[in-house]
Amino acid sequence: MREFLEIGPRGLELAHRALQSGQHRVPRAAAQLLAPLGDPQKVICVGLNYHDHCQEQAAKVPKEPLIFSKFPSAITGPFDDIVHPQDTSELDWEVELAAVIGKRGRHIEEAAALQHVLGFTVANDVSARDWQMRRNGRQWLLGKTFDTFCPLGPAIVTKEAVADVHNLWIRCSVNGQRMQDSNTCHLIFGVPALVAWVSRFVTLVPGDILLTGTPAGVGVFRKPPVFLKVRGNGGSGGAGGTADPTGCGCHRVPPSQRGDEVQCEIQELGTICNRVV
Amino acid sequence: MREFLEIGPRGLELAHRALQSGQHRVPRAAAQLLAPLGDPQKVICVGLNYHDHCQEQAAKVPKEPLIFSKFPSAITGPFDDIVHPQDTSELDWEVELAAVIGKRGRHIEEAAALQHVLGFTVANDVSARDWQMRRNGRQWLLGKTFDTFCPLGPAIVTKEAVADVHNLWIRCSVNGQRMQDSNTCHLIFGVPALVAWVSRFVTLVPGDILLTGTPAGVGVFRKPPVFLKVRGNGGSGGAGGTADPTGCGCHRVPPSQRGDEVQCEIQELGTICNRVV
Repeated sequence: MREFLEIGPRGLELAHRALQSGQHRVPRAAAQLLAPLGDPQKVICVGLNYHDHCQEQAAKVPKEPLIFSKFPSAITGPFDDIVHPQDTSELDWEVELAAVIGKRGRHIEEAAALQHVLGFTVANDVSARDWQMRRNGRQWLLGKTFDTFCPLGPAIVTKEAVADVHNLWIRCSVNGQRMQDSNTCHLIFGVPALVAWVSRFVTLVPGDILLTGTPAGVGVFRKPPVFLKVRGNGGSGGAGGTADPTGCGCHRVPPSQRGDEVQCEIQELGTICNRVV
Repeated sequence: MREFLEIGPRGLELAHRALQSGQHRVPRAAAQLLAPLGDPQKVICVGLNYHDHCQEQAAKVPKEPLIFSKFPSAITGPFDDIVHPQDTSELDWEVELAAVIGKRGRHIEEAAALQHVLGFTVANDVSARDWQMRRNGRQWLLGKTFDTFCPLGPAIVTKEAVADVHNLWIRCSVNGQRMQDSNTCHLIFGVPALVAWVSRFVTLVPGDILLTGTPAGVGVFRKPPVFLKVRGNGGSGGAGGTADPTGCGCHRVPPSQRGDEVQCEIQELGTICNRVV
């Protein structure tokens, strides 16, 4: 995908033509969806970027974007498992709107920033809160970058297909219970501002992924806190893991032996659904 | 190089054979050395990993490695320019021993860790201290990852060619004045411990680079602090930028108009030399 994006508009045109020919379609049931981008040069993340998420942790609204990162090795597919590390007891979810860079640039003006964005996808910024907040000298990287801590998908939706990226509902459910429910209109720094900001520091290249931050409702700030578990929660809690709306096959295992199921959805972009194992 | 490393031992064997044939040599003067690795999946960095560097900032010796990262876009060649961002007034140097991963692995035991290391090279962990220490919510990433903030080279020295990686002198000079002068024997966590530690969190893959931290003598902790400048320092300060031991051609510009020249050297691994512009 990264190489495809490096081709630029001509690549997209060829893909459109291939799509229109109807010759390259496969039935959904016969395909396993991988992450739409597997090996970007950068996975750029933003902290504290929703007003409601600042509020739930009594944090000041930042005056500048707060940037951190994950390693690309954290990326996993839209319906793949999140592997619960033995090393954490505070595994948490964060649904996020992710922008995919389609065009190289540095020192990009905010007014031109969307020209550098190819499209959008859904991300789960999975976080080990103990490692993020209390270990590793309070540098967030390790708590954010365990393998499988970045489910992405189900596809990249090109920006032309999205009516208004700053007015999409954004939701996360755990075992069917709604945990996060907000709208991208509550972003503190929108996509153009973030692209402009990050490009003050680094050259953005096709395939770079920018996770724009999560709204309120994460586990660590609930009272009492709630964390993701590997076993015994799949049948309990809220609506309780019996439906299988995404067909992700999370339900072959009996409820009592299932790990938590995290479903992240953004309007117009789709749903990803990952089981904790 | 990353694709070459992914081939594994067979690739190295082919390279040895090509070298021995003598048919693929070019004169040094006819070649421009690029960074030995341009687009790794990860640039992993370690903070506070020399006893003397902890001491100079009155920081406790860490009980666990402190891991942060740069984006691969920060990498630049061994004799290329470091671009001074307008956005910082506290540009600093950090000579570091870098290990290059040659073999994929997760949960690597310390005793087996060197099997995953292909070799070593010299790095300069260039840092904008204002951004690292006071901006961006004290997450170090931005201050560490401006474009050109990771000069690397001059080559990857395979581990078999290094007598003892934990007993090499390591030095940094600015305009010919020795600023850092230590030995890798003063590393708090050695290479095997670091490889084992990082692989608790992420899968290491061929081409990943691990910068192992810097010894005492960085600019920010000098009294008064010293930072790198774009102009007017090239002819002043210490031994003063007239010699050109590395032949890096930094000296075509008159001294008064030259930016600072930073030279990082590690015993048995070589020298990199980068001009601030």
